[in-house]
Amino acid sequence: MMTSRRIAGIEMGGTKIVCGIATDAGDVLERTSIPTREPDETLSDIRAWLEPRLDQASGLGVASFGPIHVDPTSPRYGHIGKTPKTAWQDFDVLRAIREWTSLPLALDTDVNAAALAEIRWGAAKGHDNVAYVTVGTGIGGGIAVNGRAVHGLMHPEIGHMKPRRLPDDEFEGLCPFHGDCFEGLAAGPAIGKRWGKPLNEFPADHPAYAMEADYLGQLAANLLLTASPTKLIFGGGVMNCEELLPMIRDAAVRHISGYLDLAGLSRGSEELIVTPGLGSNAGLLGAVALAIDA
Amino acid sequence: MMTSRRIAGIEMGGTKIVCGIATDAGDVLERTSIPTREPDETLSDIRAWLEPRLDQASGLGVASFGPIHVDPTSPRYGHIGKTPKTAWQDFDVLRAIREWTSLPLALDTDVNAAALAEIRWGAAKGHDNVAYVTVGTGIGGGIAVNGRAVHGLMHPEIGHMKPRRLPDDEFEGLCPFHGDCFEGLAAGPAIGKRWGKPLNEFPADHPAYAMEADYLGQLAANLLLTASPTKLIFGGGVMNCEELLPMIRDAAVRHISGYLDLAGLSRGSEELIVTPGLGSNAGLLGAVALAIDA
Repeated sequence: MMTSRRIAGIEMGGTKIVCGIATDAGDVLERTSIPTREPDETLSDIRAWLEPRLDQASGLGVASFGPIHVDPTSPRYGHIGKTPKTAWQDFDVLRAIREWTSLPLALDTDVNAAALAEIRWGAAKGHDNVAYVTVGTGIGGGIAVNGRAVHGLMHPEIGHMKPRRLPDDEFEGLCPFHGDCFEGLAAGPAIGKRWGKPLNEFPADHPAYAMEADYLGQLAANLLLTASPTKLIFGGGVMNCEELLPMIRDAAVRHISGYLDLAGLSRGSEELIVTPGLGSNAGLLGAVALAIDA
Repeated sequence: MMTSRRIAGIEMGGTKIVCGIATDAGDVLERTSIPTREPDETLSDIRAWLEPRLDQASGLGVASFGPIHVDPTSPRYGHIGKTPKTAWQDFDVLRAIREWTSLPLALDTDVNAAALAEIRWGAAKGHDNVAYVTVGTGIGGGIAVNGRAVHGLMHPEIGHMKPRRLPDDEFEGLCPFHGDCFEGLAAGPAIGKRWGKPLNEFPADHPAYAMEADYLGQLAANLLLTASPTKLIFGGGVMNCEELLPMIRDAAVRHISGYLDLAGLSRGSEELIVTPGLGSNAGLLGAVALAIDA
């Protein structure tokens, strides 16, 4: 019997860090969750859990919130970029990890990594062009084209595009960089600030749902009109409101106004715009997928 | 001395068709321009010019306006999709060409092809992630990631994203599908309808310039935040107004609001957002590049 390799993964999110050990077949053997605080404190907790478990691991993948410098040829490789999480700005994530392990490290954004994991093991098996959007503390998105994560000047930062404002929406937005970008208008904190409580405390016919679906539908349309994914995956805490996904599909189709041909899809937007196949393991398995690819 | 191969190319634009013969080193040997009319009439002119010149050619590339089905496994491969150019809708471009040549045919959008040609011979040499935008009769865009053109559900149709409207702009937009998408608001015909004459008949300090630059700067920002290109090329007839490009750069930087790190670029947005290196041959050489790649 073949012994599968063990791979370690760290998913660094804005609210929590997930560390785990998985097989190279995508089976999570162990995992833990650590609240995201200041970098030193958080990294110390990651080390305490992970270091004793690295003996049998052959690689370590890091899937981090962005912006983070992911170009290995850049002198800033591994550093967090400009971010509303000011304590993390310019923090060198990889250096902090290299202090306690000599395992080969792989790095990408949490959402690029999740896109790769969904292709390898999840909702996008058999697909080459995939976008993975997470709607939670922020709005992030990863894109894979021809099976590989998109990098260039930086990496996708789709949450910071500007949506067309809805005429009855006067909310100024919460993004410290852009005010009313998609993230500033439609991430979890924006919903809380605008409506006074989270989306899951409203009925699905409340205007909060329709507004959220319109903005996320616009975001879906922007992705379909640029990266042309054949699977567009929406995950993250806000998506736990199950009534939201079909409303996003309808809004995306409305914004595209028939311009993209969905005729090749037997179930149309229902087949195109989906939830993660890996559920809450998408980010962690993304980190693992990075280490396998590397 | 090595004899270079000869390749034929057809660039199909909304206003004109460019046919030509080039070497595989990207030297255009002969070219002609044909006005775009009804499909049969236009294809007949293409044949009349090109067929006698195909003897020494080893391949033929077709770089067409979109939307066009570019997935070779699709039963609709080679067909134009839904388009404001109604006479062309559903027209099978490749079948019309196969009637008079047995050369191997390669197909992509004009703008995807131009991005590949700019990587091979033009302004994006040495770059892997490139976006090519044309602003003319319409607004189209091609994207290459890891050196390959982006396809998926369809191909990039970036001109049909919706920009944030400028507060003082009441123009309803000209796109028959979306009204006030980027193309509906900022392509050549929209400028003519809104301001009464083309942009090159205004001084650069006229509000027509600032508005055009803002919308195209938003489009540049959307591309940088999704496909993350390291070269973003703006071509097409409207870009012949030379004062426009620096204004687009400023608008793009303003819309991104410092979120993308340009520190790695010695000349910042001036290095990032540029005009085509191949000038008016970008589309034709794009067609040639497709045939070489195929």
